[in-house]
Amino acid sequence: MKGSIVFKKGGLYYLDQTKLPLNETYKECTTLSQGYRAIKELKIRGAPLIGVFAAYCVYIGVKKFKGDKKVKFFNYFDKIINYLKDSRPTAVNLFWALQRIQTIVYANTAKNIDGLKKLILREAKMIHAEDIRLCSRMADNGVNLIKSGDRILTHCNTGFLATSGEGTALAVIYKAHRLYKNIRIYVDETRPLLQGARLSAWELIKKGVDVTLITDNMAAYLMQQKKVDKIFVGADRITSFGDLANKIGTYNLAVLAEHHKIPFYVVAPLTSFDLTLEEGKNIPIEERNASEVRTVLNKVQITPRKVKVYNPAFDITPHRYIRAIVTDKGIINPPFRENILRVARGEGRKGE
Amino acid sequence: MKGSIVFKKGGLYYLDQTKLPLNETYKECTTLSQGYRAIKELKIRGAPLIGVFAAYCVYIGVKKFKGDKKVKFFNYFDKIINYLKDSRPTAVNLFWALQRIQTIVYANTAKNIDGLKKLILREAKMIHAEDIRLCSRMADNGVNLIKSGDRILTHCNTGFLATSGEGTALAVIYKAHRLYKNIRIYVDETRPLLQGARLSAWELIKKGVDVTLITDNMAAYLMQQKKVDKIFVGADRITSFGDLANKIGTYNLAVLAEHHKIPFYVVAPLTSFDLTLEEGKNIPIEERNASEVRTVLNKVQITPRKVKVYNPAFDITPHRYIRAIVTDKGIINPPFRENILRVARGEGRKGE
Repeated sequence: MKGSIVFKKGGLYYLDQTKLPLNETYKECTTLSQGYRAIKELKIRGAPLIGVFAAYCVYIGVKKFKGDKKVKFFNYFDKIINYLKDSRPTAVNLFWALQRIQTIVYANTAKNIDGLKKLILREAKMIHAEDIRLCSRMADNGVNLIKSGDRILTHCNTGFLATSGEGTALAVIYKAHRLYKNIRIYVDETRPLLQGARLSAWELIKKGVDVTLITDNMAAYLMQQKKVDKIFVGADRITSFGDLANKIGTYNLAVLAEHHKIPFYVVAPLTSFDLTLEEGKNIPIEERNASEVRTVLNKVQITPRKVKVYNPAFDITPHRYIRAIVTDKGIINPPFRENILRVARGEGRKGE
Repeated sequence: MKGSIVFKKGGLYYLDQTKLPLNETYKECTTLSQGYRAIKELKIRGAPLIGVFAAYCVYIGVKKFKGDKKVKFFNYFDKIINYLKDSRPTAVNLFWALQRIQTIVYANTAKNIDGLKKLILREAKMIHAEDIRLCSRMADNGVNLIKSGDRILTHCNTGFLATSGEGTALAVIYKAHRLYKNIRIYVDETRPLLQGARLSAWELIKKGVDVTLITDNMAAYLMQQKKVDKIFVGADRITSFGDLANKIGTYNLAVLAEHHKIPFYVVAPLTSFDLTLEEGKNIPIEERNASEVRTVLNKVQITPRKVKVYNPAFDITPHRYIRAIVTDKGIINPPFRENILRVARGEGRKGE
């Protein structure tokens, strides 16, 4: 199998990301609650990929509906949507995808139940196919921000494991790598769940990119030594002001970037924007279980057993730290408040 | 047994810090090479403690010398000193303690070999006893920087495991805790070797201090949310300009502190100062094995097996980020270049 999510012969399969990098294991998702847990336990992760996967999960759920009462079906369908919305709070793509499925279903209430099931699957497949295209558009739009010889720091995982295509920030990096061959990547390990150490390092090696792993607390020293030219990260949710929620540690890098005068770029599709919010502080930030910090991947206890832990999974980076946001619709430059709305409305960039 | 190093009945014992927090295991150090490895492998760590332990190791080494040729003894002695100097490069206390033993021995060349062995042991015991006193003086001097209700972030381990007494930065915190009871500590885990998660969390819980553990990449978000009033760290080496080498991640916190206008304090005895150096960039920075980053404590592989790694064990914090340095001889304020020399020469502070 190929790709982080595969739908074939009526079955939904996914690469279990908690097993990487040591085991490449595909699992089949046969029930809604399996899908819910796959998202919650980060077997499937990455804002765009969560959206795609959740869309398929709606189909996995409704497929099981027996009977011919449409009122009951809609009830059942709404419960599925609400259940999946509860899986993770921060990445907006989850809500975007579920909303899209809900909209198409309620626009087609005249169809029979079988037709509605087919409609849901078709929409999930469309979201999936679109996500692949968004990745290549972001790569096309962002690649000119990188030049031959650049040394780039990235955080968490934003590649083909985080999306249905080549990624967000990593897609830009992969394209630059094909163009120049001599770019060099630093990735931080991204505690507690080590998406940098486990996933990005694995992806970058697979793609033949020169990658060096650091721990999260080494980034500042690297910048002080002038070993970083640019920083590229993804986003889980971007507000209309351009503030963003992304994996914990992103704001740390943004502050360091400003202090060391290193450009800080964000790469995300428009499906990661939430224009209902203005300020980043209003984005709900998921706090996860203390065991993620007290242990490493639930395999080794590293702390006194009952130590108190603070474990926010994301942080907020205010827009003033961001040099530019690369989207599938082009690069958005400051002033973000004005330019995000223009791009979202499909008005193109100034001067175009 | 009590204390991180114990010398009794002619035997040198130490608490193996690589086994903490899950096992409190004392080991006897019976040979010089065991002592060398205990330092190199961080079974014994913390700049002041390394100095004390190395002094005892010289005795463990010379004790084995057989024969009555003094020239041979001095040769043997010098080899031991050089061997131990090679164990770790950054913390200056190691070199300071070995130099002190060497000086006393060469000031007493008239003594016979047995007398010299006794002299070395006596000097090691003096260094040990002095280190305990230095800790309480730092605590006395630094405690007024903390006030009731303060929320303090600290890094790595600077407590009774890092010294022969109560510690450097943590000694100040312990004293403030006894005074106010309501101070709250955040400690970061300090990858790769997790001295914060394993050692400081363990110490702080033992002392009854309110402690919350975070991962290294959460500090910035904590500061953005105004959850940190002050930062206290230790030092492995401080130059005459006031630049310092300390555990990797210290410079990260110093930059974040400046950005968020949070005072950044350093606590270290004068034995951690190296007045032969002016600028921090001239301090040798130890780079350690990639396996420390590729695994967690050599127990779990967390990365692709052969990923390239950058693993500096320390970083450099230029003096401009430091609000004040707490020493056993008082608090040193800026301008550091002037005030460090005055305190080192025993001239006291301005106006005293």
